[in-house]
Amino acid sequence: MRQPIGIISMQFVRPFTNKDLGLFERIKGLGFDFVELLVPEPDDDLDVGALCQALTDNDLGVLLAARVNAERSITSVDPMARQHGIDYLKTCIEAAATLGADIVGGPLFGGPLVFAGVRPSPIDETERRARFDRCVDGLSTAANEAVKTGIRLALEPLNRFETDIISTVSQAIEVVDYVDSPGLGLLLDSFHMNIEERSISDAVRTAGDRIIHFQANENHRGFPGTGHLPWNEITQALHDVGYKGPVSLEPFRRDDDRFGVPIAQWRPPLEDESDKLRTSLAFMRAALAMAEHKR
Amino acid sequence: MRQPIGIISMQFVRPFTNKDLGLFERIKGLGFDFVELLVPEPDDDLDVGALCQALTDNDLGVLLAARVNAERSITSVDPMARQHGIDYLKTCIEAAATLGADIVGGPLFGGPLVFAGVRPSPIDETERRARFDRCVDGLSTAANEAVKTGIRLALEPLNRFETDIISTVSQAIEVVDYVDSPGLGLLLDSFHMNIEERSISDAVRTAGDRIIHFQANENHRGFPGTGHLPWNEITQALHDVGYKGPVSLEPFRRDDDRFGVPIAQWRPPLEDESDKLRTSLAFMRAALAMAEHKR
Repeated sequence: MRQPIGIISMQFVRPFTNKDLGLFERIKGLGFDFVELLVPEPDDDLDVGALCQALTDNDLGVLLAARVNAERSITSVDPMARQHGIDYLKTCIEAAATLGADIVGGPLFGGPLVFAGVRPSPIDETERRARFDRCVDGLSTAANEAVKTGIRLALEPLNRFETDIISTVSQAIEVVDYVDSPGLGLLLDSFHMNIEERSISDAVRTAGDRIIHFQANENHRGFPGTGHLPWNEITQALHDVGYKGPVSLEPFRRDDDRFGVPIAQWRPPLEDESDKLRTSLAFMRAALAMAEHKR
Repeated sequence: MRQPIGIISMQFVRPFTNKDLGLFERIKGLGFDFVELLVPEPDDDLDVGALCQALTDNDLGVLLAARVNAERSITSVDPMARQHGIDYLKTCIEAAATLGADIVGGPLFGGPLVFAGVRPSPIDETERRARFDRCVDGLSTAANEAVKTGIRLALEPLNRFETDIISTVSQAIEVVDYVDSPGLGLLLDSFHMNIEERSISDAVRTAGDRIIHFQANENHRGFPGTGHLPWNEITQALHDVGYKGPVSLEPFRRDDDRFGVPIAQWRPPLEDESDKLRTSLAFMRAALAMAEHKR
């Protein structure tokens, strides 16, 4: 079976609602094997039954991306935010079961910074250890739930500006190995790894079989192959650790470098990106396949 | 004359006060040619006369790094913050003249995000254009002042999480060329370029002789040579555009990857970093020199 390559729905639209279900035909037509959807929120205008039907109709797989915030964060010092964080992870697992997604990934540990309008701040050693305890407690609870439902949670390190909880692969490994559950693995995103890792390919090799989802994003989060990431080394490392799981593309930076355009802010497409997406997919599929021919 | 390589004072201590003047002897002893200091704030416990004397005593050059915030930001929608932003740039120029620094660099355009606790937000086209106008107005005024004093201002693009005003070299070039003053050039930092540029070396070549200061920082902001930046390509590009100006090191990430350590937050050294700094300096000096031997 070929390695599944998917695209995030945010490439096309945000928020994703009932009127966007027709996108699945386009996504399938572009050649993608699955769509990565944000875990639906209660107030999203999205009918889950119709969503499932549209996935089936288009023979499209699905993975879910979880969204945390300061009010739902398992590592928060606020017990209410912690409880909401755990409740949210359970909601994510239920949503995955309903939609037939077997992986929910993201910064499940909470502790958002820039997108929550929070500055990086020093913490003392007591609080650092308390955060670790809250993190493994919350993830253990959620991983137990996940195992019961046959879902796996994928912990994603985010760069230093997006969180101060887990930014490196080694930090994530520390937590995943401590929780030690078949319901918890790693989601690695090369965009974040480019900022935080000494070597992206070494980090992939260290993570090894803990990796259950890979997001193949360019250094600038544009179309893969248009930046400076060493894709041959990265795909070789994925091959060397035997990773055959899902690979997502999220190249939604947009080709718009005018003064004052807020690059970190999600922006809708400015053009029909179909050709660039087809080329991105072909590039990534070839880079993954080429690793098999080396050595 | 050999290309001057310097180190930022934050590598050792923050804030930098009168009691830290002894560091200059150590910095000189490590082999650095200059120190990069933050522009002193009025409430800093720092005697400017003693500072000048300590620089002279140690035959150490100095460059200044400007610090903006939401309350002093030339691109702000708030006229008071804009005025404070312009006043601050004038203060920076005066400080440079007093200390004998001929360059003041940084995100002089204002508009801080993560370190000001501000989220990236969408802006409409009218506001985007207004920001451009405020940016070139403020910088033109400041550049005129700079020229009178023989100082040059160096505009530094920051990654998408630190600002939504100027994140790429092409955005910075747009502004510098519009202002078109001998008092305004570019400060490029490879840490930010690694996130935002399609190719760091192409961006250096495009910036060309607008570059008046270069910060040679590793992708993870640790010691240069310990990450994955293509230093041979970067120094080759600097050589190709004839850049012989100051090169600063700011490797203050610290070698500390424990869970929950806030990587974006400044942290004091955990060890005597002298050996690592000597090696960093030797590495950068050799990488710059080696470019001369290529081709």
